[in-house]
Amino acid sequence: MLIPLLGIAQEINSPDGDLHLKFKLVNGKPQYQLNFKGNPVIKPSFLGLELKNIPSMVEGFEVEKTEKQTVDTSWNPVWGEEKVIRNHYNELLVTLYQPEYYRNIRIRFRLFNDGLGFRYEFPRQENLSYFVIEEEKTQFRLSGNHKIFWIPGDYDTNEYPYTTSKISEIPGLQEEATIEITAQSPIENPSVQTPSMMKSDDGLYINIHEAALQNYPAMQLDVNAKDFLLTSHLVPDAVGNKGYIQTGAHSPWRTIVVSDDARDILSSRLILNLNDPTNYEDVSWIHPMKYMGVWWEYFVTGKSTWAYAKETNTKLEEDPTNLTPSGRHGANTEHVKEYIDFAAENGFDAVLVEGWNIGWEDWIGNWKEEVFDFVTPYPDYDVEEVNKYAHSKGVEIIMHHETGASATNYERRLDTAFRFMDKYGYDAVKTGYVGQIVPRGEHHDGQWMVNHYIHVAREAADHEIMVNSHEAVRPTGLHRTYPNWIAQESARGTEFEAMAGLAPEHATILPFTRLMGGPMDYTPGIFQLDLSAYGNDDHNVNTTLAKQLAYYVTMYSPLQMAADLPENYKKYPDAFQFIKDVAVDWDQSFILEAEPGDYVTIARKAKNKKEWYVGGITDENARTAEISFDFLPKGEKYIATIYADGKDAGWNTNQHSYSIKKVVVDSKSRLKQKLAPGGGVAISVKEGSKEEQKGLKRI
Amino acid sequence: MLIPLLGIAQEINSPDGDLHLKFKLVNGKPQYQLNFKGNPVIKPSFLGLELKNIPSMVEGFEVEKTEKQTVDTSWNPVWGEEKVIRNHYNELLVTLYQPEYYRNIRIRFRLFNDGLGFRYEFPRQENLSYFVIEEEKTQFRLSGNHKIFWIPGDYDTNEYPYTTSKISEIPGLQEEATIEITAQSPIENPSVQTPSMMKSDDGLYINIHEAALQNYPAMQLDVNAKDFLLTSHLVPDAVGNKGYIQTGAHSPWRTIVVSDDARDILSSRLILNLNDPTNYEDVSWIHPMKYMGVWWEYFVTGKSTWAYAKETNTKLEEDPTNLTPSGRHGANTEHVKEYIDFAAENGFDAVLVEGWNIGWEDWIGNWKEEVFDFVTPYPDYDVEEVNKYAHSKGVEIIMHHETGASATNYERRLDTAFRFMDKYGYDAVKTGYVGQIVPRGEHHDGQWMVNHYIHVAREAADHEIMVNSHEAVRPTGLHRTYPNWIAQESARGTEFEAMAGLAPEHATILPFTRLMGGPMDYTPGIFQLDLSAYGNDDHNVNTTLAKQLAYYVTMYSPLQMAADLPENYKKYPDAFQFIKDVAVDWDQSFILEAEPGDYVTIARKAKNKKEWYVGGITDENARTAEISFDFLPKGEKYIATIYADGKDAGWNTNQHSYSIKKVVVDSKSRLKQKLAPGGGVAISVKEGSKEEQKGLKRI
Repeated sequence: MLIPLLGIAQEINSPDGDLHLKFKLVNGKPQYQLNFKGNPVIKPSFLGLELKNIPSMVEGFEVEKTEKQTVDTSWNPVWGEEKVIRNHYNELLVTLYQPEYYRNIRIRFRLFNDGLGFRYEFPRQENLSYFVIEEEKTQFRLSGNHKIFWIPGDYDTNEYPYTTSKISEIPGLQEEATIEITAQSPIENPSVQTPSMMKSDDGLYINIHEAALQNYPAMQLDVNAKDFLLTSHLVPDAVGNKGYIQTGAHSPWRTIVVSDDARDILSSRLILNLNDPTNYEDVSWIHPMKYMGVWWEYFVTGKSTWAYAKETNTKLEEDPTNLTPSGRHGANTEHVKEYIDFAAENGFDAVLVEGWNIGWEDWIGNWKEEVFDFVTPYPDYDVEEVNKYAHSKGVEIIMHHETGASATNYERRLDTAFRFMDKYGYDAVKTGYVGQIVPRGEHHDGQWMVNHYIHVAREAADHEIMVNSHEAVRPTGLHRTYPNWIAQESARGTEFEAMAGLAPEHATILPFTRLMGGPMDYTPGIFQLDLSAYGNDDHNVNTTLAKQLAYYVTMYSPLQMAADLPENYKKYPDAFQFIKDVAVDWDQSFILEAEPGDYVTIARKAKNKKEWYVGGITDENARTAEISFDFLPKGEKYIATIYADGKDAGWNTNQHSYSIKKVVVDSKSRLKQKLAPGGGVAISVKEGSKEEQKGLKRI
Repeated sequence: MLIPLLGIAQEINSPDGDLHLKFKLVNGKPQYQLNFKGNPVIKPSFLGLELKNIPSMVEGFEVEKTEKQTVDTSWNPVWGEEKVIRNHYNELLVTLYQPEYYRNIRIRFRLFNDGLGFRYEFPRQENLSYFVIEEEKTQFRLSGNHKIFWIPGDYDTNEYPYTTSKISEIPGLQEEATIEITAQSPIENPSVQTPSMMKSDDGLYINIHEAALQNYPAMQLDVNAKDFLLTSHLVPDAVGNKGYIQTGAHSPWRTIVVSDDARDILSSRLILNLNDPTNYEDVSWIHPMKYMGVWWEYFVTGKSTWAYAKETNTKLEEDPTNLTPSGRHGANTEHVKEYIDFAAENGFDAVLVEGWNIGWEDWIGNWKEEVFDFVTPYPDYDVEEVNKYAHSKGVEIIMHHETGASATNYERRLDTAFRFMDKYGYDAVKTGYVGQIVPRGEHHDGQWMVNHYIHVAREAADHEIMVNSHEAVRPTGLHRTYPNWIAQESARGTEFEAMAGLAPEHATILPFTRLMGGPMDYTPGIFQLDLSAYGNDDHNVNTTLAKQLAYYVTMYSPLQMAADLPENYKKYPDAFQFIKDVAVDWDQSFILEAEPGDYVTIARKAKNKKEWYVGGITDENARTAEISFDFLPKGEKYIATIYADGKDAGWNTNQHSYSIKKVVVDSKSRLKQKLAPGGGVAISVKEGSKEEQKGLKRI
């Protein structure tokens, strides 16, 4: 029975009452608004989709039905920042009807204490089985000219540096912000990518992103800088279409995380809660890990390369033993064994080996399809020997599948590639998508590639393989559903410290943007920060050494790399101890201090251990972190080892200056810790006998 | 050392001296011309390629080197029209140099007695590793306003009916010729597809096509109707590019088969000779075969369907037992067993089963990617039971992989699909590509799909599976290299007799056009020609019954279907005997009479048997075929069974009227056989004892 509810608003509150959502039809057009503590977060904004060749889903609607429910449950992730996550929301499900076309859609809103998620649902129905999206027209009408931390809209890359500006300034800054990146497809009109972090003049923090991106293109945001209006802009396919839908489907969730305390943004689990639970029957083979790799040396030393040969025109079908060795090939058996030895001695789980397989001589820039085969090593790399050696020392080798963005080639060879991994006992792969996508005309962030990454994760799961994808679409919490998709890059990471340097504030923005969707393989731990040591006088790594340690806590990931060369860790064994100690999986996380673009201080309790790790970082400005240890169990004393910036340290001066001291702490301890400009602090907190505590200062 | 040969023409003759090729540079532009017995076939025509973003390869050339050689060898195909094929040609290899860009290309000409093949070669060189073709600019400047048998240029389908006209008339007829076909992409300007068959006013037959199409787009021909100039037009990819080349590569061969006797066109093996020999180590598992199938009933009876369910929105991941059966599903276990029984009783090798697997309810028209999974049968089809039953009766089941043109989906699932086939003992698959291609924006005849079909053939070979591809790019002789790619459709076949009817001349044109590239799964053998028997009063199958028999000889294929329903064969058991008898592999073929668009009469000797089969067909006009039996061994007598049109027969009247008689023949026998309008004749010639010959007339 059709109950026309024209013009009657439907409303729900968040469980704590702070957030208020109102939905109504305005002249047949769906509209929502969101308030926080009585003030608008999203002013009345329209919802809908334009369709290809058939009437749109933006107007002509009646409300057919509305349903409400409250859910309050909790669940345990396979790995994560918390061992228990509460999922508590009030839901409003609106069924809309277009009488002119006999069509239904639904809009499902879930209002949590930390924000709103909503999505379009396309139920199976007689008059609509298939359609193509021309554009999604979801509006986010902001209440003012907020400060925004943004990277420009682009269909193929997220590796831009962040620009901080007012919304009104975006159009003027767009060109400057769109620096050159390999295989980029910038959107011409003013636009930004998500997760998009904003702060209003009166201190409201707003983060817009999406959750559970499956079988749909990624969402970017067109910017109307005059009206502070953001509108969804989907990534097109090769022929300009923006999503092929078979009804009995839904869009990803559009997410708005809101608080007047920046720390709540970082502790929000809204995006994870909006993803589906995993349906993997067995997850025992999935494990967080710490690794080293034959990797950073390619960027900084100038001495070794991924490629093996002098030739610059090679073909997969040709015998690699006919190639002319350049003498600079990094991934040779002997050299990799040095990494294995060091990793084993220092308790690392794994060693990543890049450049082990044929194809690197001319892999980039040619839009080549048959670029790698994923199974043929260079003549100087003995796959069996290296794996045997590693396993004999309790270390895994991480497989590397650079695809050169040729996804069709990868899919064709995927089964063979995973069987190869099974044969030699690999249990993790780093995938890479550098370059222009094949199928040609598709984009990294389009529907086809979105499905590709998930296909790879699922196939990998069948082989009990974990995936760490680089240059894939930015994460949207899918690691809840596919927990073997253990980490991603999808942002400007440490590699850019070797190329052009990262702004000191960069790492204070990432947790509020890129990391909202999921863990990042940021590859921290660079100790040789002065790159002139390698003959590079252009620039250095723009951090202090202590800040590199802090990243292991502030940049959440279950997969953490110690990215520097063994020889550099040998120079600073006391500081290296933190990297050896730090956990990669957690019982609980505590956001102690946070301001996007300025600073982040986080404490985390190691999984199933009485150990805590604290990381604090700052931007280019020195500051004093105020660290309360009240996350510790009451009445118990622990030994904290504080890895701090040296007094004279800074991101561009005396970067290697640091101090280490041990103190005794309990839940009442408070620490005022000075951070150098571009600096940081890392603290390990462990149990210690009275003997060990003796003589240590108590704070 | 550079030897400038500016303006000096290079010339070669065919081994028999009838064909003469001249190559020279004209103001730095490569130019060739071809004469037959002193008269121009191809007037001076330019060669070259336009490249994307870099200087073209059409001008600025010097001749660096020319080389000549003569080759005369012979080889044995795995299966074919002949057991021995002679490969005899004179070759001219011209190495060209562009001093301005320090680049080389080569043009290799091979002049056979039956025509010319030439190709572009792109050697590895310091200054050119990768490039993208914007357009190939190969000209074929004809000597006059020839008659041409053509279908309009199209990137996605070859299933047009043929138009016969003067070259000058093409522009005016292009629109009319471009009838509606599922998933078509017609070229806007006047253009035709290859193989393109022409006849000059003075009786010269010219066929233009290509050989060995690998890793390159298919070639169509732009038509300049005023100058009788045809120019290559490559099929673009999703972004409009026309070929990604890595040097150390070459184009396919451009072929011009020439004779003043139309029969020589059909007996030409030039295209096969220009393909590479197979590198399959074992070919013993590849075998020609005759099959029946659950197929024609879907087109004509109106009683059964590929689809199982009433639903029109189905998903692969859903349990098919939840579907609502329509009661009309053709491929059910019981019904398929009826076909198996009939096939076994009548000595057929195999039964094709279409519609066995889930996905048919909404497989077409939605540009759906995940359309079939190739492994899940409908609930009423027991794969194991059907195969067991068939094998127990000495019959194979032919797998059916309709892809819905979703090549990415097929590639993803290919390994699993072939393993499934291995498990149940299938050794052949019919593939189908109906619809718009996924990857979206790609075309059936573009470089990516060209590589896809070959990928499937090669993967199939690893599983000892033969492939019969429908809606793939038209063949170019690749069955020499991939002999398990046993047949293709790629033209308007018998299925259109069920839909709109085929012109009576259609089958007299196909051998001169589509079949020049390779065997066609034409699916002949329709006995119930009057479709009003099924309640279809629109049109009939436009042949006589005898002509349907003749097709088994005139439409060469190592894979021949008896396409009609068992019940129809039971009505005409004496005529059906020819289909049961006729061979599918041959020692030798004899083109007895031929004129494109009018008639074709062919005799073939069965492989390793003293049996011959003769087929003769005519267009809408009655004619008298003059059949000389001088292909028989001298001095030996055989019994010929002649399946002829009835006196009152015709393609649109008394189609089922035929007569069968036996006579004694030897190498001196001559037969004047009347063919009805749209009719044909089929003759089997076998050994017979004196007893059997007794009483038979000797001709």
